[in-house]
Amino acid sequence: MSNTWLPTLITDTPEEGYQLAIKMSRMGVKYTQPSDEVRDKLRPQYAESADSLIAVSQVVATNFQTVAAANNYWKA
Amino acid sequence: MSNTWLPTLITDTPEEGYQLAIKMSRMGVKYTQPSDEVRDKLRPQYAESADSLIAVSQVVATNFQTVAAANNYWKA
Amino acid sequence: MSNTWLPTLITDTPEEGYQLAIKMSRMGVKYTQPSDEVRDKLRPQYAESADSLIAVSQVVATNFQTVAAANNYWKA
Amino acid sequence: MSNTWLPTLITDTPEEGYQLAIKMSRMGVKYTQPSDEVRDKLRPQYAESADSLIAVSQVVATNFQTVAAANNYWKA
Amino acid sequence: MSNTWLPTLITDTPEEGYQLAIKMSRMGVKYTQPSDEVRDKLRPQYAESADSLIAVSQVVATNFQTVAAANNYWKA
Amino acid sequence: MSNTWLPTLITDTPEEGYQLAIKMSRMGVKYTQPSDEVRDKLRPQYAESADSLIAVSQVVATNFQTVAAANNYWKA
Repeated sequence: MSNTWLPTLITDTPEEGYQLAIKMSRMGVKYTQPSDEVRDKLRPQYAESADSLIAVSQVVATNFQTVAAANNYWKA
Repeated sequence: MSNTWLPTLITDTPEEGYQLAIKMSRMGVKYTQPSDEVRDKLRPQYAESADSLIAVSQVVATNFQTVAAANNYWKA
Repeated sequence: MSNTWLPTLITDTPEEGYQLAIKMSRMGVKYTQPSDEVRDKLRPQYAESADSLIAVSQVVATNFQTVAAANNYWKA
Repeated sequence: MSNTWLPTLITDTPEEGYQLAIKMSRMGVKYTQPSDEVRDKLRPQYAESADSLIAVSQVVATNFQTVAAANNYWKA
Repeated sequence: MSNTWLPTLITDTPEEGYQLAIKMSRMGVKYTQPSDEVRDKLRPQYAESADSLIAVSQVVATNFQTVAAANNYWKA
Repeated sequence: MSNTWLPTLITDTPEEGYQLAIKMSRMGVKYTQPSDEVRDKLRPQYAESADSLIAVSQVVATNFQTVAAANNYWKA
């Protein structure tokens, strides 16, 4: 895993911050299950389950808290 | 996904902040499952399950924490 | 949903803050499942399940964190 | 529910703060299920389930975060 | 439960802070299920279940957040 | 468990901070289930389950919040 996927927590806009939070959430899975093949095979398990999708949104919400604080909530 | 759905975390009132937190929570699902059709099909799974509805409220509570901090808790 | 259910996060006492956190937690469910009838029908599902009741208390704890911070922990 | 169960978040020691967090966690359940009889009946459901006990500890940890911040971590 | 198990949140090192977070997490279970015998009987339920072990780590992470903030992240 | 696995929360980059959060998350499991053999046996349980992988990412997100705050979000 090269040193580039998370060079900074700073983003220009809240939406870019939210997309970074999504990337961080996915990396939490990728570090634990590095096989693209296995993760692809698992997609139907979570992408078609309401509870799994809610749990994903919870992880994103937690990571977005971190990114938003890092960016001082994008207040000028 | 255009750059407009989250231009800012700042809202005029706590209730608008709560509604933004709901929107953020739903976007966490939408980014993961972009198909409106699939998400609509899943609605009965969560909208008629107490545990799923509680889990949704947990995601909203986490996102509302972020929005409330961004707005300095709407204190003048 | 009119603008009145969450006019402020400020309360006079910690207990009123805790009751506001409960109201916020319930609104997270109500925004997702607006039907009073469905929500009433679901009550036995969570009100007689230890795990569901624990999950509710988790949502309240998260919302109370927000309310307590907003009120500077009711320190004079 | 009288106004007295949570007069303040301030405690003399971290252990009293932890006990307050436990009380807050239990009140989250009591507000949702006010029947002592039902809650007693549910005790075996959670008191003899590892996952339920872990979930209870999560609620206490979240409430203790709030109490500890309120007490400035009991630093002189 | 004497007043001694949590005299302070201050530790010398992050690792001691992490061990305190583990102790706090276990006490959350112990306060709820005081019987050593029952807790021992439950060990296989969580110690040999991936999901339970992940949930334990979540409780520890939440308590460690509190301890780390109390110690100003052990920054000189 | 020697005193070395967590000498500091300070890292040079956000990515190293994220890797520390992963290590902290794994240690939460290791402290609870010290047997390498049992933990290896459990790997298929979580590494091939979408919900377990999401739950792991949640623990990492919580620990990363702590590490990011410790590093002042790696802002110069």
